[in-house]
Amino acid sequence: MVESIFDFTIEAESGNARAGRISTPHGEIETPIFMPVGTAGSVKTLAPDDLNAVGAQIILGNTYHLYLRPGHELISKAGGLQRFMSWNKPMLTDSGGFQVMSLAGLRKITDEGVRFQSHLDGSYHMFTPERAIEVQNAIGADIVMAFGECPPYPATRTYVENSLQRTLHWVRRCKSAHKKPETQALFGIVQGGVYDDLRKISAEKLIELDFPGYSIGGLAVGEPKEDMYRLTALLNGILPRRKPRYLMGVGTPQDLLEGIHRGIDMFDCVMPTRNARKGSIFTRNGRMVIKAARYKEDQRPIDEECTCYTCRTFSRAYIRHLFAAEELLAMRLASIHSLHFYLALMREARVAIRENRWESFRNATLERLNSENV
Amino acid sequence: MVESIFDFTIEAESGNARAGRISTPHGEIETPIFMPVGTAGSVKTLAPDDLNAVGAQIILGNTYHLYLRPGHELISKAGGLQRFMSWNKPMLTDSGGFQVMSLAGLRKITDEGVRFQSHLDGSYHMFTPERAIEVQNAIGADIVMAFGECPPYPATRTYVENSLQRTLHWVRRCKSAHKKPETQALFGIVQGGVYDDLRKISAEKLIELDFPGYSIGGLAVGEPKEDMYRLTALLNGILPRRKPRYLMGVGTPQDLLEGIHRGIDMFDCVMPTRNARKGSIFTRNGRMVIKAARYKEDQRPIDEECTCYTCRTFSRAYIRHLFAAEELLAMRLASIHSLHFYLALMREARVAIRENRWESFRNATLERLNSENV
Repeated sequence: MVESIFDFTIEAESGNARAGRISTPHGEIETPIFMPVGTAGSVKTLAPDDLNAVGAQIILGNTYHLYLRPGHELISKAGGLQRFMSWNKPMLTDSGGFQVMSLAGLRKITDEGVRFQSHLDGSYHMFTPERAIEVQNAIGADIVMAFGECPPYPATRTYVENSLQRTLHWVRRCKSAHKKPETQALFGIVQGGVYDDLRKISAEKLIELDFPGYSIGGLAVGEPKEDMYRLTALLNGILPRRKPRYLMGVGTPQDLLEGIHRGIDMFDCVMPTRNARKGSIFTRNGRMVIKAARYKEDQRPIDEECTCYTCRTFSRAYIRHLFAAEELLAMRLASIHSLHFYLALMREARVAIRENRWESFRNATLERLNSENV
Repeated sequence: MVESIFDFTIEAESGNARAGRISTPHGEIETPIFMPVGTAGSVKTLAPDDLNAVGAQIILGNTYHLYLRPGHELISKAGGLQRFMSWNKPMLTDSGGFQVMSLAGLRKITDEGVRFQSHLDGSYHMFTPERAIEVQNAIGADIVMAFGECPPYPATRTYVENSLQRTLHWVRRCKSAHKKPETQALFGIVQGGVYDDLRKISAEKLIELDFPGYSIGGLAVGEPKEDMYRLTALLNGILPRRKPRYLMGVGTPQDLLEGIHRGIDMFDCVMPTRNARKGSIFTRNGRMVIKAARYKEDQRPIDEECTCYTCRTFSRAYIRHLFAAEELLAMRLASIHSLHFYLALMREARVAIRENRWESFRNATLERLNSENV
């Protein structure tokens, strides 16, 4: 057994919701936590001091994008991704699996791995489980992901079953290939589509391999919300209580609350930043489409209760003008607010769990979010 | 005579170079100074805290752009441009003259004013001297400009002479129309193309009207550098010593040094920010094209002597990657560095003038700038 600095402690529970703490070589993460997505080594429009100011504790990098550009070897020579992008807190990388599988027409899956063409220049590449781990070892994030297939939705039971068998072979190869278990925690990813029994098999097989944490993949890919909620609840009953659970690619503020409600500790999603860049801003009262004419002379901040730089400094009227004039500052200011809101939501959730009032917090927060009173 | 808070004091001279201080309702400006350009109510990609961090003391807004969008009435209702964009230091607006005159095919000049079509939606508008001042009164900058024609280069002597006569009529109308002389200092703009005698006439007529400051317009529009230097030197001998002189739309770091050398106190230009957004970065050793392959693995900051956020935090390799990946953060980081460099250059110039070593400072700085050792 390799000694690892990675650790997870549950500090409080309220219903199925858990408040805890993950220790990594780059510091601690309080859970439940949302991880902003820094696809290509930058959380779009934001610098590290912005991320600190919005309360980010861990951010995510995309292995597929970083492998293609600037390349994992360049990142490794620069001292790893954290040093390269000047972010000195924890990071997580995905395995590249989701991205290469999404390259419809540009990729071919075999038992060996996935051969794919770069979306940038059409060049040919091969990701095997070993290669995906080698790349992640070079990038150097604190938490890394096993490489496997993320089946699309919808997919037939036969397709998902075969995909799962292959992915379970690959996860063993990932574990064997992993060169830095003492500094990089490798998470297994539960797959199985929307099929309860396949999800159960996937989770049980991964648990046998004893990972330091478990991801839930293949959700938030177009399936009905009820499937996501049902499967998360199912896995809450199967996955070991003392290991962190990461619901990949999720989601809206409502989804985060529903995930926490079912025992999830970690989330990531491009939604807050991607929507913000288009002028759709998350607030505690619902989504604000800042370009709407009603905000033209509105001197109030986006959210009068918010303490982010954007809300402390600028009016709706000004931010609306920046979007209308296509000023790049607009995207940054909106991203700062939306991420600050997501991270404040996680902070408030942790407090509610610690104070054992999760259920009432969840209900009140959902009501306000769904009021769309913006 | 209206009592104004606007004031200019010369604190030191070294050759023709002057170090001084301008007082405005929004605070003091040390001269010589460079003014970052915030065309549409935003210095592109930068927030007010960025501008403070790079050492900006005054920024510029473009009346033409602000008039079209979001509109001067909206800005006035928001409490003026400074409050609207949350910049609490001095501001200057141009008159809109340069922009509307540049709308070739979309504008018609008469003795009354300029009829023009919006570049945004083709709608028709009329700028008279009275209207240009009314708009600037509503926007509320500390320093505002008289409305006149900026002749193109090249232009015949006859064209420039006629244009100048009209502009001299207009400047009187601007002065009469100005509603807030106690809080907004109206500068006259010296025109006259590249014709020494016309420049002299222009300056003398404006001096008769006793403006709180004088701008030099119609340079940096394509004429040879020698014309700009000769005319600036000529005006240095004509314009009253105790009033600030503003060389509009200039320029490169070398141009700024040559302007200061000929008695100029204020400059503005989009060059540092516009070039930065394309990856062409100003440094004390010349221009750095950060996308060049030689910087691919270069772990040094853009400028090892620079104290800006970008240089304190990121490597050339990382910034090059951000440009290659078309990450918006690239534009902001490069803009921060280039503006910080411009403003540090002005700060160093002020110190050199105060210490009466302007000539040696200028020579050493020009030599380093022209070395292109980046």
